[in-house]
Amino acid sequence: MQDVVLLAHGSGGTMSRDLVARQVLSHIANPILSRLDDAAVLDTEGRLAFTTDSYIVDPIFFPGGDIGRLAVCGTVNDLSMVGATPVGLSLALIIEEGLPFETLDRIMASVHSTCAEAGVEVVTGDTKVVNRGKADKLFINTAGVGVIQNDIDISGSNARPGDKILLNGHIAEHGIAVMTSREGLTFSSKIQSDCAPLNGIVRDLLQAAGKSVRSLRDPTRGGLATTLNEIATQSGVGILLEEAAIPIGNSVRAACDMLGLDPLYVANEGKFVAVVAPEAAEAALSALRRHPLGTHAGIVGEVIEGRKGKVMMHTRLGPTRPLSMLTGELLPRIC
Amino acid sequence: MQDVVLLAHGSGGTMSRDLVARQVLSHIANPILSRLDDAAVLDTEGRLAFTTDSYIVDPIFFPGGDIGRLAVCGTVNDLSMVGATPVGLSLALIIEEGLPFETLDRIMASVHSTCAEAGVEVVTGDTKVVNRGKADKLFINTAGVGVIQNDIDISGSNARPGDKILLNGHIAEHGIAVMTSREGLTFSSKIQSDCAPLNGIVRDLLQAAGKSVRSLRDPTRGGLATTLNEIATQSGVGILLEEAAIPIGNSVRAACDMLGLDPLYVANEGKFVAVVAPEAAEAALSALRRHPLGTHAGIVGEVIEGRKGKVMMHTRLGPTRPLSMLTGELLPRIC
Repeated sequence: MQDVVLLAHGSGGTMSRDLVARQVLSHIANPILSRLDDAAVLDTEGRLAFTTDSYIVDPIFFPGGDIGRLAVCGTVNDLSMVGATPVGLSLALIIEEGLPFETLDRIMASVHSTCAEAGVEVVTGDTKVVNRGKADKLFINTAGVGVIQNDIDISGSNARPGDKILLNGHIAEHGIAVMTSREGLTFSSKIQSDCAPLNGIVRDLLQAAGKSVRSLRDPTRGGLATTLNEIATQSGVGILLEEAAIPIGNSVRAACDMLGLDPLYVANEGKFVAVVAPEAAEAALSALRRHPLGTHAGIVGEVIEGRKGKVMMHTRLGPTRPLSMLTGELLPRIC
Repeated sequence: MQDVVLLAHGSGGTMSRDLVARQVLSHIANPILSRLDDAAVLDTEGRLAFTTDSYIVDPIFFPGGDIGRLAVCGTVNDLSMVGATPVGLSLALIIEEGLPFETLDRIMASVHSTCAEAGVEVVTGDTKVVNRGKADKLFINTAGVGVIQNDIDISGSNARPGDKILLNGHIAEHGIAVMTSREGLTFSSKIQSDCAPLNGIVRDLLQAAGKSVRSLRDPTRGGLATTLNEIATQSGVGILLEEAAIPIGNSVRAACDMLGLDPLYVANEGKFVAVVAPEAAEAALSALRRHPLGTHAGIVGEVIEGRKGKVMMHTRLGPTRPLSMLTGELLPRIC
């Protein structure tokens, strides 16, 4: 393997993890950064959450969303995944010279409407322009800060054997929507990205299940299988998934079959996994199902004692098989 | 003019201001964002500062620094400019496929050493990779959060007639260092970027002058003239600059003469302007001069009653002339 960055290093899978561990954390590791949760929690005058993500999705408009909506949702969702209420977002644009004002206008309108939907505001920003051919239309970075109620302690490290794994709906929609749009594919019914701000549904979940919520994580790059592997590793537990319980829409399933993609590894942008103590699982599930973003919510698996650091899946056909993390790149520039 | 983004929209001058006002703020303006200070101040469990900047400097290594050092200093400095003590930084990388690990390694080592110099840490991050030819080696976004002591109220809106304008040292070094490096120019003595974290010297200034410090701003893109115009506009005051008092190194002056550049419009990355009440100006100046980053500090002008929103300069030759904001692009991709 050459000592250069490859597209696969941006995949969210094992190669991403290794790149971050070897080329980034090796230089700047500290106890906060090294927790590798979706947002940093800073102990300063109350508990503060702080997160960042750059968005390089191609194309910048896709069915069900665009790079602006994605940038707002992604960062709101990362804050939500540590149980924080978003306080403010930053928005930093890197624009390729020649981008039509009309395009930027549409993106910014989408940023605005998505902020309104999530009940957050952009509070600081930056704009840079680079020469033609030195970027690809538009890249967006959003960082976010949020506050965390004192009794909440949510982390990928907190899952315990017996906990239930909840998921708020159909998987793989974002990845398939972007990919079919990019490749100009059409299916009988148009597949829309699930891109949505999750802070509202997470708030409802926390009201219903409170301190019984151990871990939250949104399965973006790398998909559900990669996200569950991260939780299994961070918590030092096994996870057993029930294939028949995982919600997948028929169009997405058909598209994945045709394209040879495993939906468990395809990115989502409006889904999250909640690891919940067993005694609170039913109350948590009811709370999810009452929210518009959780009508198809279900319990898709549980945390187990054995198989530490591994994810197993009990398949529809009977046998149980291991589900590894994504290796390499499945769908480049999906977010 | 075509309805597309031009390189000049990234200049930090009037075209940047207009782009932000018309294409960005028009969609997402709110009282916090619209203050247009270097960092957002959020009233939540104590006063929090939050800022973001993307770095697209070309080349990524230049005399006196690199894109990693720049990204840390830039965001630490933006926090310092609202009187905040940095609490944590985010670091988001957009990497062009093919970037050698060795290059990334050098940049990350520089991020680390600059963080150590500033006494801050990166607490959250993100890494994306795009195809060859869809970015230019490496872009970095850093966001930062900081806390502000309760009695501090520093803003570009607070300058009052009679206030003194302080500057901590020689101007135009960063812009000239990057430009000569990019163009392969050599001068008799090598000009180094002034890129440095300003939180230490700002802390010393605030200890010496406290609430007498009205405004702080670092003259990055657009240079000293543009920064003073911003303060004059935000505060609704005039500013009178004394040309003979502005510190400029001989090499930089020679380079500017040869290149036909006005150093007042060239970017700095380790300089700041402090607007200080007249009774505290001498104490403030002494504090600056005691710090290694302020040995050449001076009082370069004052806030005046008339000429609201304008910057005037009393020239070496006698006459007083207006100094407008930068229009268009002077040095693209300088930070």
